[in-house]
Amino acid sequence: MTVSPFDSGLWSRHFGDAEVGAHFSDRAEIDAMLRVEAALAKAESALGLIPAESADAIARAAREARIAPAELAAGAASAGVPVPALVAALRTAVASPEHAAFLHWGATSQDIVDTGLALRLAAALDVLERRLAATAAALAGQAGRHRDTVMAGRTRFQLAVPTTLGARIAAWGMPLIRHLERLAQLRPRVLVVTLGGAAGNGAAFAGHGAALAEAMARELDLHAPLIPPHAARDGIAELGAWLALVTGSLGKIGQDLILLGQSEIAEVSAGAGGGSSTMPHKSNPVGAEALVTLARGNAAAAAELFQAMLHAGERDGAAWSSEWFALPRMTVAAAAALRHAEGLAGGLAARPERMLATITADGGLMMAETATFALAREMPRPEAEKLVKGACAEVRDTGVPLAQALARRHPGLDWPSLLDPARAVGDAPRLADAFVAAAAALSPAGR
Amino acid sequence: MTVSPFDSGLWSRHFGDAEVGAHFSDRAEIDAMLRVEAALAKAESALGLIPAESADAIARAAREARIAPAELAAGAASAGVPVPALVAALRTAVASPEHAAFLHWGATSQDIVDTGLALRLAAALDVLERRLAATAAALAGQAGRHRDTVMAGRTRFQLAVPTTLGARIAAWGMPLIRHLERLAQLRPRVLVVTLGGAAGNGAAFAGHGAALAEAMARELDLHAPLIPPHAARDGIAELGAWLALVTGSLGKIGQDLILLGQSEIAEVSAGAGGGSSTMPHKSNPVGAEALVTLARGNAAAAAELFQAMLHAGERDGAAWSSEWFALPRMTVAAAAALRHAEGLAGGLAARPERMLATITADGGLMMAETATFALAREMPRPEAEKLVKGACAEVRDTGVPLAQALARRHPGLDWPSLLDPARAVGDAPRLADAFVAAAAALSPAGR
Amino acid sequence: MTVSPFDSGLWSRHFGDAEVGAHFSDRAEIDAMLRVEAALAKAESALGLIPAESADAIARAAREARIAPAELAAGAASAGVPVPALVAALRTAVASPEHAAFLHWGATSQDIVDTGLALRLAAALDVLERRLAATAAALAGQAGRHRDTVMAGRTRFQLAVPTTLGARIAAWGMPLIRHLERLAQLRPRVLVVTLGGAAGNGAAFAGHGAALAEAMARELDLHAPLIPPHAARDGIAELGAWLALVTGSLGKIGQDLILLGQSEIAEVSAGAGGGSSTMPHKSNPVGAEALVTLARGNAAAAAELFQAMLHAGERDGAAWSSEWFALPRMTVAAAAALRHAEGLAGGLAARPERMLATITADGGLMMAETATFALAREMPRPEAEKLVKGACAEVRDTGVPLAQALARRHPGLDWPSLLDPARAVGDAPRLADAFVAAAAALSPAGR
Amino acid sequence: MTVSPFDSGLWSRHFGDAEVGAHFSDRAEIDAMLRVEAALAKAESALGLIPAESADAIARAAREARIAPAELAAGAASAGVPVPALVAALRTAVASPEHAAFLHWGATSQDIVDTGLALRLAAALDVLERRLAATAAALAGQAGRHRDTVMAGRTRFQLAVPTTLGARIAAWGMPLIRHLERLAQLRPRVLVVTLGGAAGNGAAFAGHGAALAEAMARELDLHAPLIPPHAARDGIAELGAWLALVTGSLGKIGQDLILLGQSEIAEVSAGAGGGSSTMPHKSNPVGAEALVTLARGNAAAAAELFQAMLHAGERDGAAWSSEWFALPRMTVAAAAALRHAEGLAGGLAARPERMLATITADGGLMMAETATFALAREMPRPEAEKLVKGACAEVRDTGVPLAQALARRHPGLDWPSLLDPARAVGDAPRLADAFVAAAAALSPAGR
Repeated sequence: MTVSPFDSGLWSRHFGDAEVGAHFSDRAEIDAMLRVEAALAKAESALGLIPAESADAIARAAREARIAPAELAAGAASAGVPVPALVAALRTAVASPEHAAFLHWGATSQDIVDTGLALRLAAALDVLERRLAATAAALAGQAGRHRDTVMAGRTRFQLAVPTTLGARIAAWGMPLIRHLERLAQLRPRVLVVTLGGAAGNGAAFAGHGAALAEAMARELDLHAPLIPPHAARDGIAELGAWLALVTGSLGKIGQDLILLGQSEIAEVSAGAGGGSSTMPHKSNPVGAEALVTLARGNAAAAAELFQAMLHAGERDGAAWSSEWFALPRMTVAAAAALRHAEGLAGGLAARPERMLATITADGGLMMAETATFALAREMPRPEAEKLVKGACAEVRDTGVPLAQALARRHPGLDWPSLLDPARAVGDAPRLADAFVAAAAALSPAGR
Repeated sequence: MTVSPFDSGLWSRHFGDAEVGAHFSDRAEIDAMLRVEAALAKAESALGLIPAESADAIARAAREARIAPAELAAGAASAGVPVPALVAALRTAVASPEHAAFLHWGATSQDIVDTGLALRLAAALDVLERRLAATAAALAGQAGRHRDTVMAGRTRFQLAVPTTLGARIAAWGMPLIRHLERLAQLRPRVLVVTLGGAAGNGAAFAGHGAALAEAMARELDLHAPLIPPHAARDGIAELGAWLALVTGSLGKIGQDLILLGQSEIAEVSAGAGGGSSTMPHKSNPVGAEALVTLARGNAAAAAELFQAMLHAGERDGAAWSSEWFALPRMTVAAAAALRHAEGLAGGLAARPERMLATITADGGLMMAETATFALAREMPRPEAEKLVKGACAEVRDTGVPLAQALARRHPGLDWPSLLDPARAVGDAPRLADAFVAAAAALSPAGR
Repeated sequence: MTVSPFDSGLWSRHFGDAEVGAHFSDRAEIDAMLRVEAALAKAESALGLIPAESADAIARAAREARIAPAELAAGAASAGVPVPALVAALRTAVASPEHAAFLHWGATSQDIVDTGLALRLAAALDVLERRLAATAAALAGQAGRHRDTVMAGRTRFQLAVPTTLGARIAAWGMPLIRHLERLAQLRPRVLVVTLGGAAGNGAAFAGHGAALAEAMARELDLHAPLIPPHAARDGIAELGAWLALVTGSLGKIGQDLILLGQSEIAEVSAGAGGGSSTMPHKSNPVGAEALVTLARGNAAAAAELFQAMLHAGERDGAAWSSEWFALPRMTVAAAAALRHAEGLAGGLAARPERMLATITADGGLMMAETATFALAREMPRPEAEKLVKGACAEVRDTGVPLAQALARRHPGLDWPSLLDPARAVGDAPRLADAFVAAAAALSPAGR
Repeated sequence: MTVSPFDSGLWSRHFGDAEVGAHFSDRAEIDAMLRVEAALAKAESALGLIPAESADAIARAAREARIAPAELAAGAASAGVPVPALVAALRTAVASPEHAAFLHWGATSQDIVDTGLALRLAAALDVLERRLAATAAALAGQAGRHRDTVMAGRTRFQLAVPTTLGARIAAWGMPLIRHLERLAQLRPRVLVVTLGGAAGNGAAFAGHGAALAEAMARELDLHAPLIPPHAARDGIAELGAWLALVTGSLGKIGQDLILLGQSEIAEVSAGAGGGSSTMPHKSNPVGAEALVTLARGNAAAAAELFQAMLHAGERDGAAWSSEWFALPRMTVAAAAALRHAEGLAGGLAARPERMLATITADGGLMMAETATFALAREMPRPEAEKLVKGACAEVRDTGVPLAQALARRHPGLDWPSLLDPARAVGDAPRLADAFVAAAAALSPAGR
């Protein structure tokens, strides 16, 4: 089946992601669980809980076993978790029964599933981190390039005052740098070994629960939590929130690209643009739309994870499996969104002449605030406001340019120069610089 | 990839649904779109818009073409919609170019995708309707069987007063009957032909837009809307809401089954129960958990569809594709939940002796309200309440049965009989009857 | 406190609604519950369950009692429900204790709260219905007025082909008519008496539960359900979904108004527009923004109600009180959105000259599809497409109008006339007509 | 109006919070904005942008002005933002017009609203931090007290193996410590000065934008961001996510308390319990229910904030005002939930004798896994499992205790001692200790 576009032959190339999606295949899940069983056996043998030869035999079987997802499907359906069937299959793969008896020693299904998930998330987050940095870098390149490219600032869908494209891009990119900071902070809380046994207290580990978790964490390059997180799902929910933050920031970029690429505005284009055979003037913002769709999807899915925090007792089958629906899709959505965003950032093409035309349309009314501040240096502000308001009325009524209407009212100033949009962009270039510097600070050493 | 459990080899058997899921494969989507192209050509030929031989050639090609999802993936990714690639592939399949020229005549991609979706939804809703009725019937069977099976009513997770299992089951089943009513009401709003052309006004249909839509509706057994619903997504969102209502009602059943099946209560069991090799006393409520998980997932996904109603202009690529993520999963979730629910309803096993033991535990304090009402026929209610309160205190302090404590205070009444739980269930049996009757009324003609 | 903008002195005038909000005050809640207690007593007396004089005394006290919300706050906090405190206060207000003893006879708190809610919802839904019809009528007025006002159709934020403003407005308004249809269908499922007593089986009603509910339904102008809906929340969730559908459709209108009102487009304006003292060219789309905000808020809140369907046992305090957070805000949001929408619809001002300018900008490339269809009547379509594509390239390269570029390539046709946008709007006027007719059919008798 | 329970006279004592709610009154919002205007003037004067006497006059007026929310309501409704009306009112309050002219110099409405919000959030987060620490401390007290209190571990609503109440409480409390860690990390990203002027580039600040923001940050004890966050809402959304994490963790505690307090289990009680006049055996888990309700509400509201990250252009009125609906309610919900949780943690009462009775019921089947591990030290595990399985069957069939059934099969061991639940709790006491230590580490220096 292909209920989800992320899994569809038609759609996964667009909405999904091959590299990160690979960590969310049945195959990857089974492989990760096998690695966990091997690491558990190894750690248990090191602590004297099971014989070393048994651990070796288990590790070998885990490495060599070929267990197809379909083999585990019936077991997963009947147990609501794939581990009993996996353990049974792996037990068969361990040559001798006396070694097989030590497989999964003292562990519970959730230990295997959740630690396996942590392994896959660790790999996926490395990709996301790399793409975040690359997207930030691509945006920084554009922010630098367009540091001084004058563009209309738009607030509440109305032309406001001039700014630069570089400043806009800086506002797009700055959150990505914060997302990298957040990622570094959350990793130790999220990428953890889960090892607690049936009720989370390691009853079968003879007092070695904490040591085992630490040994496994070293082996698997994960973190060891102070307490097994069976029923404390804040790490998972925090990760989901982070993924929604990432796609949210990218969705904002997508929406802005859609708006700036409207036929009537067409100041910025990004991506190839979906053409239309019968409407040659169209250039559908396909990539930017994907950013919006993926962002809105993750926003909804994050709620699913927050709901799943209400996890009853030592383990709650329903709440736990809710996570299996939300977290993989959110991770792949973030990966796909970053892939699109990096491409769009790299391919962003600006049309400065159209940007300028926007600002100077309507007689330059957009410069009214600039005029007011200029005049307020010469007269009390209320007078300045009144004068400008009158000039604006004249512009709207007669079509005369604002500079001219102002000159007639207050001749002493060099109005054309004062109203030059490029001089009215304030700190916009410096905002671009600030982002470029922050992105550069990430670069090689940063990660 | 298998990002979604609905698509996973491991999980789709449990959380997904083969029958309804089949309508959400890439294959099914392509086939449905081909049927729509054929129906469009046929309708256009009937109205003289395109030559009859061209319509025949197109219909034949649509029937016989073998177009693999992978062939369309690149096109879907570049256009954000699969139709241009599909039309190109189908055009190749139409033997002669002069016929091929009339393929997709005047239509837009959304016409094909959305009408194709309506076809698949129509088939899926038939399955859901059948399963709703079957689940209601299975529940009605149990409600009848347990019409008089005395069970503790539980409010706010506390024992309240006696009721019957039949009344509880009636409260589970009644909403399903309302869901069938809702389904009948929403079908004409949801299962519609979409045909509007580029901007939704059928500009290329030479004034035949409405007639074409009606002809296609007849051909495809769908409804024809007064206005093409390109940007009016209330039908889709309404369907999503209905799916969330269905899974919500089933999720309540699942949650109740989990609670009634707790080890300490164990009054009702349903489904085989996921066993545990090392904990023989466990019987995990796997099916009931799935009902809860699927319900909570659909609740979150419904919000995604409501958000997607903010659909800009004549067509909004981002909002539109949001639906592709939410609606298929919601439909399959409802199908899976109904499959589980029907099975659980059929296999529900009650343990009346445990139910009775619950009620009579703690000296029968649960009967205090019954005692108060009995006494209130003999004395002013405040006095009755005071007397019962005193008796209850004695029960808690000394462990003496409530009937005895009451008899000591108010000897004239036949307390054991008055406090017989079976006599204190009020209208519970009649509520069960009412549901049984309502379910029976569905049966033969209804569907 | 004013945690919610709906309750804020600053904001309730804008985001809230005085008329519908009045039904969601503490005062209104208490009054409604008092009405329910009175109706219950009256019905019980009619059926001989309690003395007639007691019923009269209770009804009188319920009518005359002055119970301040603050009096019930401590009781609400300690019981998690306001009814015990309300009943105690009302009992005091009933002059004689022997009558007071029959107050709330056999009822449970949820009976009073939920029936009281139904009363308030009934009143609120009447207002919403009236406003839906008024908004539809206002939109129909504009659709008729702009039946033939040529405007660019916009798909995926790109200019597509010409349509009319009337057709766009019809697409806005048609869903409102469907919402009225849905409302009529859901009322009997939602506006119901809840009467079940402690565990929902009317144990204290001596077999008269159903008759009592019917009597109360007549008295209170509500419906009587077959089974008390204590734990079956599909009615509430359905209503929430409907409210989200309503605001979703209005949010789409708001978003379109924002887009059409962008400074660079400014083809339609609606509402007064929030001015800016320093930016005279700005006209912020304040009302349209509110439509978007309210729609997105209701979309999220609907999920809260779907989650609350997982209502445990005979009553679930946590799930039940979730509804108190979501449903009132959703109802008031719908009321406010309708108020804004009706005003915006009435005040909608179109600028046809700007609409035409949009279409003819860029040499009229927007007419390319129209040209293709015209040529396809003269030559095979692929040839037509090729010819038009060449002409478009010339337009883009040289700035020559499309009609001229086409005439050079294919001189026989009256290109200026063929490419007249007004002749290329297809069925747009008829779509406007269809909506106008559907809205008219509502009018006086309709409701 | 009292659309929201957070604002209701009836409900705010229970679901709301007086201390944190005070920061979300209209009054508090206006006061905070006035503080921001004063701080802006002061900073501008320090940098020479406006005269010092003007700054003083503005600060004085801001301190002394009495501006009622109702005065600003019309202005808020017409502008969609309260600042123009506020500035007008404040301007009147500034004695002399020449000083008043420098009020709000170069700022935009969002600068004032968002910086004012940051001030209020800073105060609210201090309260939340204090309560988080207090709740963690109260839980740590109970975890220490019940370090060795044997209780059944429950997985998937089934009895699993023994653990201790202290370990369960540790699993409740550990996330709170992580929430404090998260809070420290997010503060600098969230509690920031917003100062950007009309289009976010400080065009009217003559190059002093960054210096002004830093001066204001010092004055207001906030952080200064590298770039004004007008349209980058990751900070707000991150805070919302954190609030949902907090209430999610508390909701899990609430749900567990509800389950452990079920009449049939009654192993733990917390809070006074809502009584019922007619059902004396009831003790409704009112506080615990509130934790669940508030958690589920915040989970839904978090999605609203993630959706609002799609913030168009330099400012998006609709997306921005979405935050006003979600963030205050989420903050107050977290405050109320913490207040309840702290009270419930402090008042938690355990009934160890009932806990033990649960474990030893059913002949002690819960100890089967313990028995298996004991036997697996004497024989191959498969044999051990087989032997235990046989013994369990006997227990179920005959009611004989498990120890006896095992002794019959394998006499050599001291079964009563081996199956002593207190010896089978594994690391549970050490988990409690780990949490106690982590909570202690917070204490004096920590904050």
